Amino acid sequence: MTTTLRTAVVIGCGTTGTSLALALGLAGVRVTLVDEDPRALEEAVSLGAGTAWTPGQPPADLVVVATAPSAVVDALHSAQSRGLGHVYTDTAGTKDIVCAEAELRGCDLKGYVPGHPLAGSDAAARDTAAAGRFTGRPWVVCPYETTPDWALETMDALIEVCGAYRIDLAPHVHDRIVAELSHGPHLIAAALATRFADSSEAFLGLAGNGLRDAVRSAGGDPWLWGDVLAHNAGPVADVLDRVTEQLARAAAILREGDASAPLELAPTLEEGRRGHAALQRAGERRTLRDAPAGDRV
Amino acid sequence: MTTTLRTAVVIGCGTTGTSLALALGLAGVRVTLVDEDPRALEEAVSLGAGTAWTPGQPPADLVVVATAPSAVVDALHSAQSRGLGHVYTDTAGTKDIVCAEAELRGCDLKGYVPGHPLAGSDAAARDTAAAGRFTGRPWVVCPYETTPDWALETMDALIEVCGAYRIDLAPHVHDRIVAELSHGPHLIAAALATRFADSSEAFLGLAGNGLRDAVRSAGGDPWLWGDVLAHNAGPVADVLDRVTEQLARAAAILREGDASAPLELAPTLEEGRRGHAALQRAGERRTLRDAPAGDRV
Repeated sequence: MTTTLRTAVVIGCGTTGTSLALALGLAGVRVTLVDEDPRALEEAVSLGAGTAWTPGQPPADLVVVATAPSAVVDALHSAQSRGLGHVYTDTAGTKDIVCAEAELRGCDLKGYVPGHPLAGSDAAARDTAAAGRFTGRPWVVCPYETTPDWALETMDALIEVCGAYRIDLAPHVHDRIVAELSHGPHLIAAALATRFADSSEAFLGLAGNGLRDAVRSAGGDPWLWGDVLAHNAGPVADVLDRVTEQLARAAAILREGDASAPLELAPTLEEGRRGHAALQRAGERRTLRDAPAGDRV
Repeated sequence: MTTTLRTAVVIGCGTTGTSLALALGLAGVRVTLVDEDPRALEEAVSLGAGTAWTPGQPPADLVVVATAPSAVVDALHSAQSRGLGHVYTDTAGTKDIVCAEAELRGCDLKGYVPGHPLAGSDAAARDTAAAGRFTGRPWVVCPYETTPDWALETMDALIEVCGAYRIDLAPHVHDRIVAELSHGPHLIAAALATRFADSSEAFLGLAGNGLRDAVRSAGGDPWLWGDVLAHNAGPVADVLDRVTEQLARAAAILREGDASAPLELAPTLEEGRRGHAALQRAGERRTLRDAPAGDRV
C-alpha cells in the first residue's frame, strides 16, 4: 500500500474494472465498486474485488472510470459532481475524443488523468478478470498540460500496484498506435471470421490452428468494440484502407493469372514475414520499460 | 508396417517431406530420400528421416512427391519415367491445377493418387519436421475416376502410418476450402504484418498477444506461399474480394462519423464473434473423422 493510494472507487465492473479492483485489493487498497448492472456488481463483489459503493463515503484517493469509451465522460462528470474522489482516471481504449470531451464538458481536469492500460489479453483469458492482467504491460497516460504532480503521483501508484509501467503519449498519438496494433486488426479478424459463422462442422473441422489464431481477437464483445472503433474512427479507417489496398492489389495479381504472380506477390509476403518476425521478437523482449515510446510511429 | 507399404521414396526434404519420412520410418517402412539441394537432403538424413536414394534401387511401394505445387508434375513425371515406384502421391496444398497438369502431361494416372495432408501447423512447430505432424489431422485425397483400389490401399496405408484420416474431395472443392481456411487468411495476415516490418522496438513493445496471434501465419516461407497462392489464384482472389469489401464498408461507416456507427458495425462484429466461436468449437472437436466433408462449403 502506498501513502497516496489507500482507498479507491472503481466505476464499471467489466473485465478491466474488476481486474484493477482485484490488484488494488491485493495491495491493501480499500476498494468500493459501482456498476449500473446489479449482476455485474454482484459478480465483482463475489470475486473479492471490493464492496459495493454506498452514498456518504468520504472521497476516495482515486476513482477509476472503467466503462466503454462513450460512457466515460458522463461517468466522470457525474462522479466529480458528487465528489467521489480526489484523483480520477479512466481506462478507455481511445483517448483523443475522451480527453477533448472531458474538457468541453467542464470536467475538473486538474484531478483527471486520462489513461489506458494495455491488457496482455492472453487469448485464453481475454474475458477473465485477474489481478495480474496488467502485470508487465504498458499503461498509457495522457496528461493535460495542466495536470498537477499530485494527480500523477496517485496515477503512478495505481500503475505500480498493477505491476505495469507508464508511457506518456499525446491522445492522438495513442489513438493511432492502438488503431495499428489493436483496433484495425480486430476489425480485420472479425471480417475474416464472419465467413465461418454458419459453416458446417465438417468444413470447420479442416481448419488448422493458424486460422484459429488469426481470428482469435474477433471473440471480443461486439458492443464494446463497436463503441471503441467508432471512437477511433479516422485512425482505424486509415488502417483498413491500407490493408484493403494491399489485398485488392494481391487479388488483381492473382486474377491476371500470369506466371509472374509468385514474383509479384513476393514483396508483400516477404515484408509480412519480416513484420511477423519483428512482432515475435518484440514479444520476447518484455523488458522494454525504459525505451522511448512513440518514435517512428 | 503394413503389407502394402514396406518401402517408400520421398522426393523433397522440406518440412512436409521430412515429417512424412520420419513417420514412415517409425512404422518400419524403409525410406530413401531425394532433394535437389544437398544440404536439405543431408539435414533430413541427419534427422533420421531415411537414407539418400541411389540409382538402381528396386521400385518402392510408394513415392511421395513433397515439393512446392509448381514442381510436382515435373517431379512426378520424371519419377514415373524412371520407374521409382508402384504408387505415387504428392502433398501439394493445391490440387486442381496439379491434377489437370498431371493428366495433360501424360503421367500414369493409375498409379498416382493426388493428396494433401493438412498439417496441424502448431504455430511454434510450423517449420519443424516431426513424425507427429499429421496425427489426428485430415488428409485430403483427390482420386481420379480411374484410380484403382490397389493404389488407394497404399495411400490408406500412408495415411494410417501418419495417424491422419482420409477425406476424399474433388480437386476444385479442395482448392476452394483451403482458399477459405488457409490461403486467403495467409495473405491477409501477411498484408496486416507488413506494417510492422520496419517499426521501432518501442512501438512494437506496445503490441499484445492478440496481434501476434493474428499475424502468426505470415511467418511462412514467402516463396513457397507465392507458389501455392498462384496455383489457387481464383479461389484466393474470391476470399480477398469478400474481405476487402467488408473492410471497405467498415471504413466508410467509420469515415461518415455518424453516431450510428457502432450500430452499423455491430452485424460484422457480431457475425465475426459467431465465426470465431464456431472455429473454437471445431478446434475442440478433434474426433470429426466420420463426419461428412464438403457439405455447405
